[in-house]
Amino acid sequence: MTDDSDSETDADGDGTASADETADADDRVPVLLVKGDREYLIQPGGEQGTDLGVLEVPEDVQPGDTIETHLGEAFRVRRLRGPDLFHQFERTGAPMVPRDVGLVIGETGVSQGDRVLDTGTGTGVLAASMARAGAEVVTYERDPEFADVARENMKLGGVDDSVDVRTGDLTEEIDALEPSSFDVLTLDTGDAAAVVEHAPDLLVDGGFVAVYSPFIESTREVVAAAREVELSNVRTRETIQREMQFDDRGSRPSTAPVGHTGYLTIARNV
Amino acid sequence: MTDDSDSETDADGDGTASADETADADDRVPVLLVKGDREYLIQPGGEQGTDLGVLEVPEDVQPGDTIETHLGEAFRVRRLRGPDLFHQFERTGAPMVPRDVGLVIGETGVSQGDRVLDTGTGTGVLAASMARAGAEVVTYERDPEFADVARENMKLGGVDDSVDVRTGDLTEEIDALEPSSFDVLTLDTGDAAAVVEHAPDLLVDGGFVAVYSPFIESTREVVAAAREVELSNVRTRETIQREMQFDDRGSRPSTAPVGHTGYLTIARNV
Amino acid sequence: MTDDSDSETDADGDGTASADETADADDRVPVLLVKGDREYLIQPGGEQGTDLGVLEVPEDVQPGDTIETHLGEAFRVRRLRGPDLFHQFERTGAPMVPRDVGLVIGETGVSQGDRVLDTGTGTGVLAASMARAGAEVVTYERDPEFADVARENMKLGGVDDSVDVRTGDLTEEIDALEPSSFDVLTLDTGDAAAVVEHAPDLLVDGGFVAVYSPFIESTREVVAAAREVELSNVRTRETIQREMQFDDRGSRPSTAPVGHTGYLTIARNV
Amino acid sequence: MTDDSDSETDADGDGTASADETADADDRVPVLLVKGDREYLIQPGGEQGTDLGVLEVPEDVQPGDTIETHLGEAFRVRRLRGPDLFHQFERTGAPMVPRDVGLVIGETGVSQGDRVLDTGTGTGVLAASMARAGAEVVTYERDPEFADVARENMKLGGVDDSVDVRTGDLTEEIDALEPSSFDVLTLDTGDAAAVVEHAPDLLVDGGFVAVYSPFIESTREVVAAAREVELSNVRTRETIQREMQFDDRGSRPSTAPVGHTGYLTIARNV
Repeated sequence: MTDDSDSETDADGDGTASADETADADDRVPVLLVKGDREYLIQPGGEQGTDLGVLEVPEDVQPGDTIETHLGEAFRVRRLRGPDLFHQFERTGAPMVPRDVGLVIGETGVSQGDRVLDTGTGTGVLAASMARAGAEVVTYERDPEFADVARENMKLGGVDDSVDVRTGDLTEEIDALEPSSFDVLTLDTGDAAAVVEHAPDLLVDGGFVAVYSPFIESTREVVAAAREVELSNVRTRETIQREMQFDDRGSRPSTAPVGHTGYLTIARNV
Repeated sequence: MTDDSDSETDADGDGTASADETADADDRVPVLLVKGDREYLIQPGGEQGTDLGVLEVPEDVQPGDTIETHLGEAFRVRRLRGPDLFHQFERTGAPMVPRDVGLVIGETGVSQGDRVLDTGTGTGVLAASMARAGAEVVTYERDPEFADVARENMKLGGVDDSVDVRTGDLTEEIDALEPSSFDVLTLDTGDAAAVVEHAPDLLVDGGFVAVYSPFIESTREVVAAAREVELSNVRTRETIQREMQFDDRGSRPSTAPVGHTGYLTIARNV
Repeated sequence: MTDDSDSETDADGDGTASADETADADDRVPVLLVKGDREYLIQPGGEQGTDLGVLEVPEDVQPGDTIETHLGEAFRVRRLRGPDLFHQFERTGAPMVPRDVGLVIGETGVSQGDRVLDTGTGTGVLAASMARAGAEVVTYERDPEFADVARENMKLGGVDDSVDVRTGDLTEEIDALEPSSFDVLTLDTGDAAAVVEHAPDLLVDGGFVAVYSPFIESTREVVAAAREVELSNVRTRETIQREMQFDDRGSRPSTAPVGHTGYLTIARNV
Repeated sequence: MTDDSDSETDADGDGTASADETADADDRVPVLLVKGDREYLIQPGGEQGTDLGVLEVPEDVQPGDTIETHLGEAFRVRRLRGPDLFHQFERTGAPMVPRDVGLVIGETGVSQGDRVLDTGTGTGVLAASMARAGAEVVTYERDPEFADVARENMKLGGVDDSVDVRTGDLTEEIDALEPSSFDVLTLDTGDAAAVVEHAPDLLVDGGFVAVYSPFIESTREVVAAAREVELSNVRTRETIQREMQFDDRGSRPSTAPVGHTGYLTIARNV
């Protein structure tokens, strides 16, 4: 899943089944060590200095275990979950919030066995979340330093085997990609429209494009491109969420609702 | 999956994990046969009568194949995707829309290796979608006939191995369930509050509850129950979506926005 | 107007300001004649054929009276109210809904003694509503036939003395208008930005501009123009309304919410 | 317009016409004196100490005039507008925002000649705004100190002749009010449902009730009461507003939208 990737190909070539991978993954996937507000994401076998002492994490650590620092402070071991990525990943920009990750996954049906083409990687929360749902993801990030951070984040998320972070501009690499080799195309860049034009070539029959754009102008370009290449069911939705308040006085929407994040455009290659 | 990618193509051709999984899965998982507006979800090895003739689907059918009816009408073979479940499943009530499926998955991080406890099953779109993201799901449906339909739907969705549809009332079965054995609890019933009371017992440390309620009164009960048993980060959101319109005159929200579906309450066992 | 209130009743009877005004106005202002779903807006002294016979309305008709057709069918007399304009006016396009009329009035404070410059008139609901709140309104309508309909509508609304419907294009008439002679400028045309440029000249110190635009592109132009001429407190809001449902099952937002009407941009000449 | 009110009745009894009142009002209505961010609402003939010296306002002051303090600092004279009330009134609680004032006025059509019954007064922004649109308003405030502040605010707003602020609980005064003597009933109290029960008695045929409630539970009670007494067109709307942002990058809803204020229930006595 890396871009040179002999060793990777070999690793994949072992032909581990999904269940096997999960079992193996449980050994390799970092776990959360938690005490009150303190949370550390640590690889099995790794160690971490904290203000409460050093944590050494055994190779066979299991969620539910308790581990003490060398100063005797007890931390509980917890499995990493998707929403934790949002807080644990090193940020190179505002990461996609769990709600929007969910909308992309729900509207495109990203799941096991899917091959996803993603750009731009950014912090990598979306790519990692799709990998956690079983997809193999190729993701492009223009900024080499951001790409390095994203690769570290994929390790943190335990999905470095499933996410291939490539440094570069997807719009310049499209011709080199195998036609009809992706089930889903997820775009979160200002020039998404230039990629959407190639969606019919890149996607399998029935595959989905999901484009996330903060601004209406770029959203409009995306919709125009999707129509131009005759994708189907092109639709754009703005999602507004209201936090609800329940107290002794009664129930009502919050006076401080959740703000705009972006427009989500979905289209299908049928 | 790489951009140069002879080796990758070879790798895909001779059995990388991803391809293998897909191939194995494809043997069991039904495929969509599509011609214009006609769509049939059929098991490999099965057959289906249509108004354009009988379709016989070979055991080794692959997405991208073309299959003709005995009258010579060509259908294309497409992989089933999550949003297709919404249209293909037999309904015993209004199924959860892809957006809400996504919000549940995004906010709880349902992914590979998760054990999910779900009620009420209903049409089963949420249970099947979580299974497609890699979870093992136990789901309760009170109505025996609805449960039978849901079991058939799980087969249609190719997830009958991962979803255990149980006929019964979860509130009466809680004591029989193993403590701390679930990562996520998803509730879509009027008496969800009665289950939420048991969430700290049922969930692993760090696990999530997601409750979907159309009405504010039952939502309020759920929030009260979650606070009573000291779940953390209890929050309820109403999701409003606006379909956007782009035409020659300009860009604007649709005059016919997407309606209310339900309040989603999320809480965490920490 | 008092709670004991003989003197009040007397006062009303012998001419308090309020009662006098109403009485005078009632001589001229059409009244609604209502029977079930049938509603007719008729001038005092006028007559109207209906499927239940001819209604003759006396000059001294008062709200609360009952009037029979020549066939003996009784209609009740009701005062015209603002929201009735929406239904009673002859339409030359989609009239502004009561909610948006209210937002314009609320955000600009249109009230007694105000001089308002308005374009384009359209059906005239906004102009008539502002006149009913006490403003003197000059309104421009490009289409001569629409302007004629609007003039008839002003008579129907009893505000033809307060609303001057001019046939023409406001952008061509600006130089002929007296500087600083308007308290409020209300714009509902595609080229509103071209008028906004002149707002500082047209408005008194502290006066308001309100622009109603269905599309984001023209809204953007309006905002740019307002900033260019240094109006203050420039802000644009989209209004979303949810109809609430209350029934035996509980309370929730409607599954069929109120759609988008337009963006409302407000700015102040300070 | 007061409840004992001989002098008031006499004053009204002069029979000043609307136009006259406006002319007279211009002499009496306070004006805004503005310099940069400094704004003072002062009666003609009054004086005001400021950190820039004392302002003496002549009886014949006119909007557009410039007035200097005794230290020679120039202030501009501006007419008071509705949205200014929100900032200038002394507050005894959160005053109704201009948007909600507008929605009440728009949905009920409050205008010249209307008699409005209002409770609870609070800061008095709604009562004053309706008076500015030409209505005679009777408003009840339970708290005697709040009522005193509201009376001062009515003077500040130049509408003390049109707004009768009564200290007391409307629910205990209903029987003393003249039947069918109000065109509009505006309620902003927790026990609004108890007043709505009497709406058919208090309102003229075709009159409107508008109830503003922050919580869903009290809103539900209001709707139940309105249905019980067979008011028509009972509907409740939640208003959500999104502030739009326009900058060099593009156009989008703000990430900090306008929060919930209240549910507005409208019903009609037909």
